[in-house]
Amino acid sequence: MTRVTVVWSAETLAHDPGAEIWLGTRTPGTEVAERVTVIRDELAAGGFPIVEAAPHGDEVLRSVHDPAFVDHLHGIWQKWEDGGYPRDYGQDRVVPYVFPTEAMLAGMPAHDPAATHARAGLYCYDTMTLVGPGTWRAARAAVDAAQTAADLVASGERVAYALCRPPGHHATPAGYGGSCYLNNAAVAAQALRDHGFARVAIIDVDAHHGNGTQAIFWDRPDVFYGSAHVDPGAGWFPHYFGFAHETGAGPGHGTTLNIPIAPESGDAAWLSALTRLRDAAEAFGAEAVVVSLGVDAAADDPESPLRVTTTGYHETGSAIASLGLPTVAVQEGGYHLPSLGTLVTATLRGLSG
Amino acid sequence: MTRVTVVWSAETLAHDPGAEIWLGTRTPGTEVAERVTVIRDELAAGGFPIVEAAPHGDEVLRSVHDPAFVDHLHGIWQKWEDGGYPRDYGQDRVVPYVFPTEAMLAGMPAHDPAATHARAGLYCYDTMTLVGPGTWRAARAAVDAAQTAADLVASGERVAYALCRPPGHHATPAGYGGSCYLNNAAVAAQALRDHGFARVAIIDVDAHHGNGTQAIFWDRPDVFYGSAHVDPGAGWFPHYFGFAHETGAGPGHGTTLNIPIAPESGDAAWLSALTRLRDAAEAFGAEAVVVSLGVDAAADDPESPLRVTTTGYHETGSAIASLGLPTVAVQEGGYHLPSLGTLVTATLRGLSG
Repeated sequence: MTRVTVVWSAETLAHDPGAEIWLGTRTPGTEVAERVTVIRDELAAGGFPIVEAAPHGDEVLRSVHDPAFVDHLHGIWQKWEDGGYPRDYGQDRVVPYVFPTEAMLAGMPAHDPAATHARAGLYCYDTMTLVGPGTWRAARAAVDAAQTAADLVASGERVAYALCRPPGHHATPAGYGGSCYLNNAAVAAQALRDHGFARVAIIDVDAHHGNGTQAIFWDRPDVFYGSAHVDPGAGWFPHYFGFAHETGAGPGHGTTLNIPIAPESGDAAWLSALTRLRDAAEAFGAEAVVVSLGVDAAADDPESPLRVTTTGYHETGSAIASLGLPTVAVQEGGYHLPSLGTLVTATLRGLSG
Repeated sequence: MTRVTVVWSAETLAHDPGAEIWLGTRTPGTEVAERVTVIRDELAAGGFPIVEAAPHGDEVLRSVHDPAFVDHLHGIWQKWEDGGYPRDYGQDRVVPYVFPTEAMLAGMPAHDPAATHARAGLYCYDTMTLVGPGTWRAARAAVDAAQTAADLVASGERVAYALCRPPGHHATPAGYGGSCYLNNAAVAAQALRDHGFARVAIIDVDAHHGNGTQAIFWDRPDVFYGSAHVDPGAGWFPHYFGFAHETGAGPGHGTTLNIPIAPESGDAAWLSALTRLRDAAEAFGAEAVVVSLGVDAAADDPESPLRVTTTGYHETGSAIASLGLPTVAVQEGGYHLPSLGTLVTATLRGLSG
């Protein structure tokens, strides 16, 4: 069995969104720092070697994201404090109130907004992805973890796992949302490309479609994006994307594969989809794999209606391992704290072959 | 002095947003039903004749708005109730949580969302424009009031005033926001066009730029849109629009005129802008005028930093009256209840020449 090194950073605990604004109502969020500690503790108990994320420059990050977006996310909390919003408006996290949708823009050329409270909606596309004082530090540390795991694989390890938090697969080239800020999986994939793997396949096993990752590689022929997820057509986030007819564009046409799965589905439908994703990655000619490892398709998870078992997650890992390719796994969602560590452990044991 | 008929409908009181969600926090809104009653009472006391809005078909409404948008707004509250949102989520008004901005879409072709809570963000572009059980009735009644006022002017009255609520000038062809749902001023202008006035000028004296009205007539050569408003570049709503460089497009190039005004400005800057708007409407060759009559540029108003006096609003009316054209005034903003009636009365007295 291959050793799987776990990369983590204590900095990922610094992000405390405190809440989500759901349909105008403040609700407790499920993307909490404790997710990291329960996963880490169980992996440590299971004998996985654990290493610290190494700091990396912004080059890869800024090649998958719009640099203006990265700068915005880096600076928005300080601007929020400087603008007196926590003091004057009782709002201790960045939450936008106006969003430049096409319904608003109506085809007219829009001016960038001047006010910080308006600029908040320029790059953030929902009200459930709050920014606080530790958000940038955590998101940036998660990127370092993903990149460190890619380095390990490039230097010869067959599988490495980045315990990223916050998750990343909903972060688009220039947008954050869905509890994601910076796209860790996209950074890992690009890092592998930069390390010389000519074709990289991302297999996204989070319960939700990774619209951000898909967007980043939408027109790229060198990175495959395949995802199994609860059917957005049944009313699930990210609502606008994740349908089977989305297959990429331009030079990237045919390098995107979405497999929407009906709510309440369990291991059978899930593993059938995983086999298709595995085969597509092979047909693509992938030389390395990034797994967007959400475990929120599990039956107990509060954030999806899928019913994948722990065994199903182990077999998910095994199916991907059967590609026999260098593999970086990046943590995405998974919110049921009592089973989170077990689910991740099972998947990594499957990945380790 | 010309008689100014006031058109109103008790149905406009049915809209009770209850709150605004401002940067993720529930705050009391200022766009309250009492606005209508204080204006109506003061106009009645001032001897203005008051008539009921007459019901009109949807033809004009659906020619200035996307019919799918009108249908959405008509049906969204019932869908909200049917979906159990008030019961299951503690949310008694429609407030979106995810918005399909370009940051989210990232150039990919988007699928229309299936879930009601996601569809809420398809046509609504902010979190401060809540929909409740009476919203459609009120917004639709305000459209009837605007159209009735246009009928009165078409049948020979020189000035008629529609006491519309909710306001309308932030409602775009297919979007609502900024406390506006249906664009009453655009309906009035289109109704005048349909009545045979070949060229109609809209003069928007609300403190905020009417991005919705501008969008509806952006490429139209037959309707001029001119607005004086607090500079969006100084951080004011609608943030993305209202700049001087916006002048229309295509056949409508040159038929939009924005005059941003610095915060804290008073009558001098305001009336200088009004003179420019008046002259531009004349140069345009307008045969009729629609006034988007917000009085929130007044010094006491909580929603803008402008300092226009009651005399300034009277002179605003006089400047427009000097065009000598058939004129429909449509109520937009104005939120300082103690002075609201006085400000509207002063403007209408000015308009009556």
